[in-house]
Amino acid sequence: MGQPAPSDGAPPAGPLAIICGGGSLPLAVADAVSRRGREVLLFPVRGFADRELERYPCHWFTLGQLGRIFGRARAAGCREIVFIGTLVRPSLLRLRLDWTTLRALPRLARAYRGGDDHLLTGVARLFEDEGFRLVGAHEVVPDLLLPEGALGTRQPSARDRADIDRALALLAATGPFDVGQAAVVAGGQVLAIEAVEGTDRMLERIAALRQEGRIAGAAGTGVLVKAPKPGQDRRFDLPSIGPQTVSGIAGAGLGGLAAVAGATVVAEPEEIVRRAEAAGVFVVGVPAREAPR
Amino acid sequence: MGQPAPSDGAPPAGPLAIICGGGSLPLAVADAVSRRGREVLLFPVRGFADRELERYPCHWFTLGQLGRIFGRARAAGCREIVFIGTLVRPSLLRLRLDWTTLRALPRLARAYRGGDDHLLTGVARLFEDEGFRLVGAHEVVPDLLLPEGALGTRQPSARDRADIDRALALLAATGPFDVGQAAVVAGGQVLAIEAVEGTDRMLERIAALRQEGRIAGAAGTGVLVKAPKPGQDRRFDLPSIGPQTVSGIAGAGLGGLAAVAGATVVAEPEEIVRRAEAAGVFVVGVPAREAPR
Repeated sequence: MGQPAPSDGAPPAGPLAIICGGGSLPLAVADAVSRRGREVLLFPVRGFADRELERYPCHWFTLGQLGRIFGRARAAGCREIVFIGTLVRPSLLRLRLDWTTLRALPRLARAYRGGDDHLLTGVARLFEDEGFRLVGAHEVVPDLLLPEGALGTRQPSARDRADIDRALALLAATGPFDVGQAAVVAGGQVLAIEAVEGTDRMLERIAALRQEGRIAGAAGTGVLVKAPKPGQDRRFDLPSIGPQTVSGIAGAGLGGLAAVAGATVVAEPEEIVRRAEAAGVFVVGVPAREAPR
Repeated sequence: MGQPAPSDGAPPAGPLAIICGGGSLPLAVADAVSRRGREVLLFPVRGFADRELERYPCHWFTLGQLGRIFGRARAAGCREIVFIGTLVRPSLLRLRLDWTTLRALPRLARAYRGGDDHLLTGVARLFEDEGFRLVGAHEVVPDLLLPEGALGTRQPSARDRADIDRALALLAATGPFDVGQAAVVAGGQVLAIEAVEGTDRMLERIAALRQEGRIAGAAGTGVLVKAPKPGQDRRFDLPSIGPQTVSGIAGAGLGGLAAVAGATVVAEPEEIVRRAEAAGVFVVGVPAREAPR
């Protein structure tokens, strides 16, 4: 930890280009990379990324304007690119496409017909064709990943553990369908499965259903579980948790949250722990399920 | 069709007791049974069932007051009971429990810890212990069930058929987790999976996500698919569709809806067809998947 990159004798890779989606992760990654002594060049996505990113060199861009990124990243000497942050799947019809993107359109359109994984894989290949190396945020900032065990003092109960196991088994079953990476289980009952709406929205739904008396268990029971999809390209789109996730589970009246250790990106761990302690919920890294039952 | 029950030489079963949840199905069942010449005695659940049911003899009751049903149904000579209509899983803590229900509580509480199937199975057993025979709505009104093929003139396209297959495979995978019976797939992508929120709510979510531009496909693509859970007790809790479902898929910008033929209860088929034609969406009964892949 803490040594400046790179350690394998390869020629220095220049500044790290970071394509920044929404949420607090992009800034956390930029901070961590630059703390480790490497320059960063940020490409925040207009409409998604946070203004605070502007404390670093930034080129804002609009989805569909890939040509600008290639040119500017190359001019700055970047050879490695990281994708980080949330990006909702936009409607192709709403994008303003530049020439580079237009030429790639048939390939992207094919990718659009599949789920998210296909889309991201298609985009990744575009960058690789342009000579960039796509790296995972966790490769440049290894301590971004959730460790095994509890963050903070709260531990899941035996009942919570059973709910976690059930949710992991469910996510293993839905994984092949390239669907969301999260589910909520309480007392053995599956309360929600995430698809396009995303985790925050799913938690708001639980909160609403609970308020309407449509959830049987008492407040403080039930677990949000996040897991990577089987075969997911971990260079982008690893599941992530952040302070907002903790506030979300507290608002939904759940007992805590579990995510797969070593395969979940953690934004602002100190703030996560602060909020978890204040709300009395647990946050735990668990091993991946060995094999589907 | 049309002949008065019963056809097997058994002694007449007396009036049919119908426990009525929400939605338009209970009235449709009561109408159909009484058209077939059999008396009905309705037990609408307070807070869920429709006032219109009062055109038949009715005893409103509160969930948790099972004793009243047993007594009144027995006094009226009922020996068969049907459960029909939507009932959200109530919080045990909110129920006012009568003595009969209280005595059964340990058993019900055990059932509560599982998913819906367990709960309903537990309730069913209570009725059977009291000497009633629980029958499926489709046993007393066979033409309640969705036939194979399209209702109305619209047919699913080849692309819709592929989405239907994918959704059926997904529902087969989630079935063992006793989770919802519906999913939305568009162009190969899983947009939503139903859990506790129910079909109408899931469709509202799709409508909202589409309005926010978070759904890639054009309006008029995507299919709602409903299927029974594997091993589900078909005497209650078969998936159902009604006019509201059709309005829901139209509002969500989907192309149509598919459900498993012979295993889906249809409320108000004429009105379903009218709304489907007006909205330009298809409604189709499809065969169950033979085996999980």
